[in-house]
Amino acid sequence: MSHLLFERHAATLERAVQAIHERVYWSAYPESASPKNYGEGAAEAGRAAFDALLGKRFPLTQPATVGDVGGECSPFGPTLGVTYPKPDIDGLFAAVARAQESWKKLPPQAWAGVCVEILARINKASFEIAHAVMHTTGQAFMMAFQAGGPHAQDRGLEAVAYAWDELCRIPPQALWEKPQGKGEPIRMEKNFRVVPRGIGLVIGCCTFPTWNAYPGLFASLATGNAVIVKPHPAAILPLAITVKIAREVLAEAGADPNVVTLFAHEAGGTVAQDLALRPEVRIIDFTGSIANGRWLEEHARQAQVYTEKAGVNQIVIDGAADFKAVARNIAFSLSLYTGQMCTAPQNIYVPSAGIGTADGHLSFEEVAEGIADGVRRLLADPARAVEVLGAVQNDGILRRLEGARSLGTLLLDTQAITHPAFPDATIRTPLLVKLDVGDRATYLNEWFGPIAFVIATASTQESLAIVRDTVRGHGALTLSVYATDSAVIERAIEVAEDVGVALSINLTGGVFVNQSAAFSDFHGTGANPAANATLTDAAYVANRFRVVQHRRHV
Amino acid sequence: MSHLLFERHAATLERAVQAIHERVYWSAYPESASPKNYGEGAAEAGRAAFDALLGKRFPLTQPATVGDVGGECSPFGPTLGVTYPKPDIDGLFAAVARAQESWKKLPPQAWAGVCVEILARINKASFEIAHAVMHTTGQAFMMAFQAGGPHAQDRGLEAVAYAWDELCRIPPQALWEKPQGKGEPIRMEKNFRVVPRGIGLVIGCCTFPTWNAYPGLFASLATGNAVIVKPHPAAILPLAITVKIAREVLAEAGADPNVVTLFAHEAGGTVAQDLALRPEVRIIDFTGSIANGRWLEEHARQAQVYTEKAGVNQIVIDGAADFKAVARNIAFSLSLYTGQMCTAPQNIYVPSAGIGTADGHLSFEEVAEGIADGVRRLLADPARAVEVLGAVQNDGILRRLEGARSLGTLLLDTQAITHPAFPDATIRTPLLVKLDVGDRATYLNEWFGPIAFVIATASTQESLAIVRDTVRGHGALTLSVYATDSAVIERAIEVAEDVGVALSINLTGGVFVNQSAAFSDFHGTGANPAANATLTDAAYVANRFRVVQHRRHV
Repeated sequence: MSHLLFERHAATLERAVQAIHERVYWSAYPESASPKNYGEGAAEAGRAAFDALLGKRFPLTQPATVGDVGGECSPFGPTLGVTYPKPDIDGLFAAVARAQESWKKLPPQAWAGVCVEILARINKASFEIAHAVMHTTGQAFMMAFQAGGPHAQDRGLEAVAYAWDELCRIPPQALWEKPQGKGEPIRMEKNFRVVPRGIGLVIGCCTFPTWNAYPGLFASLATGNAVIVKPHPAAILPLAITVKIAREVLAEAGADPNVVTLFAHEAGGTVAQDLALRPEVRIIDFTGSIANGRWLEEHARQAQVYTEKAGVNQIVIDGAADFKAVARNIAFSLSLYTGQMCTAPQNIYVPSAGIGTADGHLSFEEVAEGIADGVRRLLADPARAVEVLGAVQNDGILRRLEGARSLGTLLLDTQAITHPAFPDATIRTPLLVKLDVGDRATYLNEWFGPIAFVIATASTQESLAIVRDTVRGHGALTLSVYATDSAVIERAIEVAEDVGVALSINLTGGVFVNQSAAFSDFHGTGANPAANATLTDAAYVANRFRVVQHRRHV
Repeated sequence: MSHLLFERHAATLERAVQAIHERVYWSAYPESASPKNYGEGAAEAGRAAFDALLGKRFPLTQPATVGDVGGECSPFGPTLGVTYPKPDIDGLFAAVARAQESWKKLPPQAWAGVCVEILARINKASFEIAHAVMHTTGQAFMMAFQAGGPHAQDRGLEAVAYAWDELCRIPPQALWEKPQGKGEPIRMEKNFRVVPRGIGLVIGCCTFPTWNAYPGLFASLATGNAVIVKPHPAAILPLAITVKIAREVLAEAGADPNVVTLFAHEAGGTVAQDLALRPEVRIIDFTGSIANGRWLEEHARQAQVYTEKAGVNQIVIDGAADFKAVARNIAFSLSLYTGQMCTAPQNIYVPSAGIGTADGHLSFEEVAEGIADGVRRLLADPARAVEVLGAVQNDGILRRLEGARSLGTLLLDTQAITHPAFPDATIRTPLLVKLDVGDRATYLNEWFGPIAFVIATASTQESLAIVRDTVRGHGALTLSVYATDSAVIERAIEVAEDVGVALSINLTGGVFVNQSAAFSDFHGTGANPAANATLTDAAYVANRFRVVQHRRHV
């Protein structure tokens, strides 16, 4: 069966491998929610499937279940009322270890075939998952559909493609014939067996539960490891649906469904740490806070630990051909999902003497005001604004937002907006604060949420020097530069490569610095403190398995 | 110039990449020291070049030199009397950092071209290096030539091939065109720049200074990292010659020679730790003791640490078609370089009821005596024996050998042999001790040197169970099984894959369990405590660099 799955998806996999080698535009799963892509009635069926889950025990049967757990509440208002199996940790690990024994013996084709089939089924559930993502993360529906659905699925397939590309280049067998002058050569048959590391643990986050979890989940699965998925207590449902689908595919393929299991838990306690320190766990994929990521890197020494933590993303403005387009683009980046993205910009550096534009010189104040005005215009219509902003995921964001208002001169205050469909949702517009260049203690820290600082610097040279210090010391996932002078752009590229952060140059159109496209953009570099790995590259997969050989004369 | 080097060696590199994908027999550098391969007079010229180095300051000019250092003494007797530049640590790092700045900006072709040219020049110096290896490690000349010369060079080229194979698959640039329905697509130019991690540190050992250092040295160099080579104080000369050649090639190619530097030091002190904890050091390749390897893994957290430590290698005997051939093969493995190999077998498990052979049943005692007799026969002629044994590298081996004599029943005592050409050399034959299966506290530890234990087990099943515990708990680089029953062989393969150790089956001919062929055998698995990486595979190179992208609309 698993061999049939490989054949079914061989063309997709081959195309995906081509895509990772070219890194031009490609996508396996359509991002448009149109019925042309997903079928007539798919949207309604997905909504109904989601509704049917609410207020019930989630239909997931797992071994070693000792009770119920769950307490998710939609950032748009309603309590979900879904409960999940609460696992006994020892019992679950015993079942997963048994599953791992059989899974690891299958050939890489079986791992790849099962993975791509799981992704295909997840794709079919995109609408159901979109509602689950929306009502756990606070993303507006269309973003939840795209980022939580097809974009996340593409990232998962990308990981499978990297894994497959590495596994393909290890010959299962070789006939080694060493010449012996005029005598018969020495002949040996050598067998090279791919052996997975062990059990993978995926630790999810509450803002992008699928997008950030799929790369690690599928990278580990596709290299023969069983995976325990531990969602954030506030965003269990999207990963519960994912795990359910994975288990169904595994069972249908004749594999042990416990190759993929869910470890749901409620907030508080030490579940993440307890799981991470289990000796059976040999791979950990983590997305979350700097503190928790560092703790894992420091303590989970028995495992390969891949972390995407956080950082301080920055924009350097030196000049612009069309400043209105710059302001529009930045405004959208600050507003999208209320800035609750690890890639959202925070610090905006502008020379105190202002900048040159095609329409003439703009003072620092005009630049700052232009950005503030861009945000105001983008969010002027509340009905449109809520589709960009979504809802505030948690109270920590609100507290941070309130605290940031008094950090400096207010350029744009945050405002509450009422959602026409969800009156209980907490919706906030971005806050823009002017800081002095000397306020390093403030702006070198991450203020996760819709909080941005506009900072007047002596020059772009100083801006880039601050960028360098910030990325080196605190990490960053994105850097953006606006300049018309090619020498400034070259200098920005040099700084970006030096400190290891992805750079976007003069984004004024339909691409935003927060966005990272599967099969093309590398998300995170692994070269600065924000992340110790890239989603996804060869290094992300090559150490999830080992090769064990045996040889004999023939 | 560096581009010309790439062109000069492109065919070799391409052939090497083919070899790592096929892992059938291939070698770039001839292992036979014949004049047909190395030219008439090469042997004499190499000897003369070595002799010319003795008793002098080694001709290596490095920045930040603050004195002389060195105190190598040949295990065959003579003091070498060679001194090396003693670097000021801060000054050297400053110079290396400057070199790294220019080296990292070159394209991967330049890195590869320079690497293969260095290897080609090292190959030409194989005789000189062979004498240097012989008179630091104690290897007999022919082994020093092969393992320290062409075999080590092949391992270096293998690392370059893996690096090149990974780097090739990252496109320098991509045109990303995202369709927009009937509108114009969004077009972005994306640039993907390979950015090396930083400075690599290679920590050499005193038994295989070149063979164990070249993979890390060339893997780091070929991915754009500068490398500081820190030899073992007892085996500086082979790596000093290596570094000198590397610096010559770099200078001729117009690169900064400080991309490769030597950090020689005398025994004692904390040089290795001081270097390993420098924040500039981002990659460490280590070969040596378990204690030192663990210390690095634990403390050098700023760096990627690749360790090849040590372990307990084992032989399981269940049956044999030709027991005399088995005994001959094992005897050679125990004797080769006086057992001073990280791959040499230590524990030999034999069922207490004996084994079946083509010539009938052999009791446990007959098997043990057969192996002892194999050693006696192999080493009967002292003139031939010294060419197999070489000399004892250090007094620690002698002390361990003496201590092991009283651990159990002596099956074969160690003997001193006088070397006809080097009367001062310390030469010892292997010691064979019978241990009880209950003596775990003894035989589960590594007794590095010419020390082997023959252990009577209840059955091969028990032998394999001990193997499992030993590899899991203490690590191993090799496992060997002798059996005629295919079920036993299958079981041994299963155990080997389970615990992650390379297995050799029924070696009775011209291949020995201690030998690992470049481009075919993976040395170490990274799956048991003996080594956290393989020499060489994709995982060994893929994390020595990162990719930093920049993108803009076009």
